[in-house]
Amino acid sequence: MPREVVSHRDGHVYEFGPEMEPVYEAADSESLTIETVDSLNGEIQEDDDLLDAIPEEVNAATGPIAVVGASPGDVLAVEIADVRVAEDRGRVLTAPGFGLLRDDTEIDHPATRITEVDGGDGVSSEPGTIDFEGIDVPIEPVIGTIGVATGGETVSTLTPDDHGGNLDTTDVTGGTTVYFPVFQEGAMLAMGDAKAAMADGEMCGTGAEIAVEIDATLSVVEDPAVSLDRPVVDTGDAVKTLASAETLEDAVALANGDMLDLLAHHHDFSRTEAYLFSSLVGGLEVSQVVDPQVTARNAVPSEYLSLPF
Amino acid sequence: MPREVVSHRDGHVYEFGPEMEPVYEAADSESLTIETVDSLNGEIQEDDDLLDAIPEEVNAATGPIAVVGASPGDVLAVEIADVRVAEDRGRVLTAPGFGLLRDDTEIDHPATRITEVDGGDGVSSEPGTIDFEGIDVPIEPVIGTIGVATGGETVSTLTPDDHGGNLDTTDVTGGTTVYFPVFQEGAMLAMGDAKAAMADGEMCGTGAEIAVEIDATLSVVEDPAVSLDRPVVDTGDAVKTLASAETLEDAVALANGDMLDLLAHHHDFSRTEAYLFSSLVGGLEVSQVVDPQVTARNAVPSEYLSLPF
Repeated sequence: MPREVVSHRDGHVYEFGPEMEPVYEAADSESLTIETVDSLNGEIQEDDDLLDAIPEEVNAATGPIAVVGASPGDVLAVEIADVRVAEDRGRVLTAPGFGLLRDDTEIDHPATRITEVDGGDGVSSEPGTIDFEGIDVPIEPVIGTIGVATGGETVSTLTPDDHGGNLDTTDVTGGTTVYFPVFQEGAMLAMGDAKAAMADGEMCGTGAEIAVEIDATLSVVEDPAVSLDRPVVDTGDAVKTLASAETLEDAVALANGDMLDLLAHHHDFSRTEAYLFSSLVGGLEVSQVVDPQVTARNAVPSEYLSLPF
Repeated sequence: MPREVVSHRDGHVYEFGPEMEPVYEAADSESLTIETVDSLNGEIQEDDDLLDAIPEEVNAATGPIAVVGASPGDVLAVEIADVRVAEDRGRVLTAPGFGLLRDDTEIDHPATRITEVDGGDGVSSEPGTIDFEGIDVPIEPVIGTIGVATGGETVSTLTPDDHGGNLDTTDVTGGTTVYFPVFQEGAMLAMGDAKAAMADGEMCGTGAEIAVEIDATLSVVEDPAVSLDRPVVDTGDAVKTLASAETLEDAVALANGDMLDLLAHHHDFSRTEAYLFSSLVGGLEVSQVVDPQVTARNAVPSEYLSLPF
């Protein structure tokens, strides 16, 4: 079977909701290539292109892709084999009213810097660098927005929540498997908003936004041994629970609580023991602090935890 | 000159204030060994020893140590050569009303688990492990409380702030240099509250609390090229600004703002450029989310930033 390519030109969404119409139907365990446009739809190409406001339509997410057999209560495993940059530049920028230091009057809002791609041959084994004001920054791609149909609400691709969405999490890259709770038949996966590089926190409001090609395998886990309320990633080095909420305090509490479920299952710990152990290894991490909800994670090294699916 | 040992038996404090009486006066660039008791003064020795409330006197900090020549506006560099565990057990515990998930009714408050030290020979090159319910966790010591005399307020050793204090930051360990703003003549350094292991976040409220011996060299940086408002650490791999505040949102904004000062100085960036660059490399990290103020950091890899002192 030739490998299917699903492009943003085939279909993309600006919101995740309970009812989504698929642009492609994947078999369970099918491997696909997914093409995405940059989060700003190619509108920023030069340093002089400024963003006066966050557009209504932002973070176009290619899809949705239905996965045959995925039903509510299942888990969808998205094994990301590779993420390749697909254009010659990224863009990092501020916009008025957006970003961690939006009220700092010494910082220009808006401001744009184009980060040209240099070196590399467009494949992940030789990803090259981007240039920021003469500094080479290694390309380490991140898929910013990735999620599934929601349990009920309709959520913009600017906002992360239990369905995923705008998680802006550096771990969502080649070599990682992302696990989502399935809320609707077919799961309805969509993704976009990639960056060539991004700091944990995404403080200014963006990474180096760029179009990419993603190789991924989509698999259904029926009747998971531990049910998921929110996304979880397995990077190979660590298992990390992801949680989004209005405050970082709430997000880290949700991520820690989810991690206790996984630790208790794996080690046959009481919840108290899981909590004490979670305070000794790995720990809390920041995904992003700039979206309408913020995202945090709780990491535990793989030597202490593997997922039961 | 024989290496001086300053022990908690020589003197310790439970608060940092503007006026502190030194127990030892160190020469500029003097190397010392500092001995600390565990954060709970040895009162928890068995799983049955429970903490019904956080004690009034907690996190005994050995010192203060005056450093000759340190004056307000200077920076005090604390180069930590080594941290060695100095007893056969640590303790990880919950207490009522304390910890990230203090309201989770399925978690016992209080609860204690003794973590016995196993293997190793007490030196940092062979630190051994601690045992948590049969799981070996490598000893990676952390100095939880470390700080200097404040600019004006009196702050309990349970609370972190601009002077340092209860920072509970995993990077504060052997191989790291911690830089503090000097607010008072002599700086007045004190430290304690070490852990044999701790997760970023210190979610249950403690790591594996343990007595340690610390080898450190204390040096004064006069007229620093960049003045510090808050502590900064250099781990050798990364430079990290540390900030404490009532919320994580405020702490990460302070840490990011401090990092922009360092990036702008190092790269001759505008503040806007420093902000954009900070959103591409390294990023925000969590120190602890359980103390009366929480602590976060902004890390930038050493390939992009070195400190100007």
